[in-house]
Amino acid sequence: MSEVTERDATQTAIMDATYHALCEHGYANLTMAKIASEFEKSKSLLYYHYENKDELLVAFLDYMLDRFSEDASIESSSDPETELRSFLDKLLPPELDDERRRFHVALFELRSEAPHDEAYRDHFAKVEVFMRERLADVIRTGVENGTFRDVDPEQTAAMFVSTIHGAMLHRVTGDGEASTEDVRAALDDYIETRLSAEER
Amino acid sequence: MSEVTERDATQTAIMDATYHALCEHGYANLTMAKIASEFEKSKSLLYYHYENKDELLVAFLDYMLDRFSEDASIESSSDPETELRSFLDKLLPPELDDERRRFHVALFELRSEAPHDEAYRDHFAKVEVFMRERLADVIRTGVENGTFRDVDPEQTAAMFVSTIHGAMLHRVTGDGEASTEDVRAALDDYIETRLSAEER
Repeated sequence: MSEVTERDATQTAIMDATYHALCEHGYANLTMAKIASEFEKSKSLLYYHYENKDELLVAFLDYMLDRFSEDASIESSSDPETELRSFLDKLLPPELDDERRRFHVALFELRSEAPHDEAYRDHFAKVEVFMRERLADVIRTGVENGTFRDVDPEQTAAMFVSTIHGAMLHRVTGDGEASTEDVRAALDDYIETRLSAEER
Repeated sequence: MSEVTERDATQTAIMDATYHALCEHGYANLTMAKIASEFEKSKSLLYYHYENKDELLVAFLDYMLDRFSEDASIESSSDPETELRSFLDKLLPPELDDERRRFHVALFELRSEAPHDEAYRDHFAKVEVFMRERLADVIRTGVENGTFRDVDPEQTAAMFVSTIHGAMLHRVTGDGEASTEDVRAALDDYIETRLSAEER
């Protein structure tokens, strides 16, 4: 392996170890030692790259956002309605498997650090801005090509992102799955009756 | 004072002390001693009623929900659209003062305990069910009296509650106030263009 791919491979292995340790232990009980024990390469590499768990976790969150934004651009579709629905499919799937649920729980634990920690706050602000801009672009394209009615792309995108995050929050901290299906049905109704320019 | 009003007054004083201590210190740094120091009556009364901070906090959350639901029924209006908007005014005010912001931060810290703690989980599930049922009642009344179009009251209510909680979450853990105004504008647009049966 070249030096660059070697470094990338190490980075990917660290991020994988962090993902598994976070799903397994949650944020509160996570330690560098627990992440290291999920890491198959030399432990010292981990400590060489990151000083403490919060520094590593912020890097991990940024890595996840990069992957999410790469996925989002690969799957970009020429049809805004299809793209909007596939964004919802990805973020509000009908079911969460156990690992994914534990990952979402950990994400909300990390989020509750944000009010007190600038690095986390900056990260979560970046996620929201990314999601809003991405959805606003899709909606704007739809308005411009006539598949959507003349709604405000920024406002509509802000509403979608809040609805998605609220439903994700309810899913892991409230009455579980009860309302996810209803929220998704209401968003689909919104797309059909308010956004779509097509008469059905 | 009679025994009952004496007991109520003590209870109210404990809840007030808890509110102020929670705003001041947040959840992670909160202790029974810190709550006691906000309490003007005999400290021993506090320990007599509650064994530890989590027992007290769950009682506090239930007390806040009771007050919120009393408020909501007093302000019940005969016009569903006015009622829906005043519900939004209350939960997504254009500005959060500093105390209120710290209270919202503490609420999300408490919520991040929910995945691991049944008493918190039950409480937050109860809040969501209360909000959804309340909004579904308002929407159903509107559909029945013809001020609203024939939407599904439960699904629409579930979407509103998720949007509100998502916006509250962004407000205190993300890019702050930037999107609250956009979310509110999009919900108002939804009420006008999709819910309201009136042509404008």
